[in-house]
Amino acid sequence: MVDLTELMENEVFMAYASYTTIILSKMMFMSTATAFYRLTRKVFANPEDCAGFGKGENAKKYLRTDDRVERVRRAHLNDLENIVPFLGIGLLYSLSGPDLSTALLHFRLFVGARIYHTIAYLTPLPQPNRALAFFVGYGVTFSMAYRLLKSQLYL
Amino acid sequence: MVDLTELMENEVFMAYASYTTIILSKMMFMSTATAFYRLTRKVFANPEDCAGFGKGENAKKYLRTDDRVERVRRAHLNDLENIVPFLGIGLLYSLSGPDLSTALLHFRLFVGARIYHTIAYLTPLPQPNRALAFFVGYGVTFSMAYRLLKSQLYL
Amino acid sequence: MVDLTELMENEVFMAYASYTTIILSKMMFMSTATAFYRLTRKVFANPEDCAGFGKGENAKKYLRTDDRVERVRRAHLNDLENIVPFLGIGLLYSLSGPDLSTALLHFRLFVGARIYHTIAYLTPLPQPNRALAFFVGYGVTFSMAYRLLKSQLYL
Repeated sequence: MVDLTELMENEVFMAYASYTTIILSKMMFMSTATAFYRLTRKVFANPEDCAGFGKGENAKKYLRTDDRVERVRRAHLNDLENIVPFLGIGLLYSLSGPDLSTALLHFRLFVGARIYHTIAYLTPLPQPNRALAFFVGYGVTFSMAYRLLKSQLYL
Repeated sequence: MVDLTELMENEVFMAYASYTTIILSKMMFMSTATAFYRLTRKVFANPEDCAGFGKGENAKKYLRTDDRVERVRRAHLNDLENIVPFLGIGLLYSLSGPDLSTALLHFRLFVGARIYHTIAYLTPLPQPNRALAFFVGYGVTFSMAYRLLKSQLYL
Repeated sequence: MVDLTELMENEVFMAYASYTTIILSKMMFMSTATAFYRLTRKVFANPEDCAGFGKGENAKKYLRTDDRVERVRRAHLNDLENIVPFLGIGLLYSLSGPDLSTALLHFRLFVGARIYHTIAYLTPLPQPNRALAFFVGYGVTFSMAYRLLKSQLYL
């Protein structure tokens, strides 16, 4: 039987595991933020969710949209759209034997950019703060994809 | 050449593979559910999709939203938001050498909670059924993330 | 320390890595397409995004939705819903020791179908072009999931 713990002794893979766990945990925090705004602002998407706030027609008035809730949801969806490519491409990149320092640079830039993107989206900070954060994360993922396709292409 | 089938002889990894395949297949079922309601209720998002139901203005009346379809779509998006972190964190957790019984407990609770979440969302069951299902899945993923960051952190 | 580069000498895994990198890069292109249409059509979701196009009430008129932008966003979400299962199930399938030719058939069909799906969605081509592309990708993923659950089930 292969000793899987050996995989975790590879430094690049351990770094990938650490940064991925951090950024996925950050993404999960968006669900909590949505729930927080829905409850404090009484803004719901489902009739069964407002049942505790009144009966019949009285409860239905909480079935509405709210700028703040929609903003958090857009930030969450943008996370999904960008963290999913990082998850897949980053894993394969980590297994392709890059230099440790190059890999760390990629992972740190990506995680930093996505955390800054969330801050810029939720505050909100004026543009181009959010756009720059988006493009740094995007560029890092493409840089890893480019290295993979250049060195490992098998079609 | 490394014998990859050895990886599949690791019991924790095989359990991760089995539960992940099941929960991703369940998530894919949501697409079928959306298609089913769109076709039976004649509710479409694209003009080309209603072309078979009439010509010109007659077809355009099917470009609308529907409570049932929107409910399935919300359940699907919630699946994406929660299964993506499980996919990444669960993979890394499986490779970090946990006890088989602890790992099985995590995987079973997560898959059970997400299946119950879908049932609670689509029926719909009164709250807090869906909220509890959500938090069980969320807690399981955080528990795996915590173990990873505690034992393998490399920043 | 395990030599991870060995994993990349496995032909099935290298093929998975190549096709996954290609299809995730294609998915990332959808963000660029959304940004392109938002900027050229002046259609924004956030007040801070229109600040460069005018002041106060003058800028607010760009906070609107647009058919073209919504179409790209639906195509992007459909990608997420289908590429995430491929990412997870395809990885586990690649590690389960399939024939190289069978694996290549699965990966090529999936990537071809998803690229055709995007073309059919954005052009848009009349149905059933998009529906067929969707079901080919869906069927390929289920075929891999079926093989996994048949040969590796551990619950």
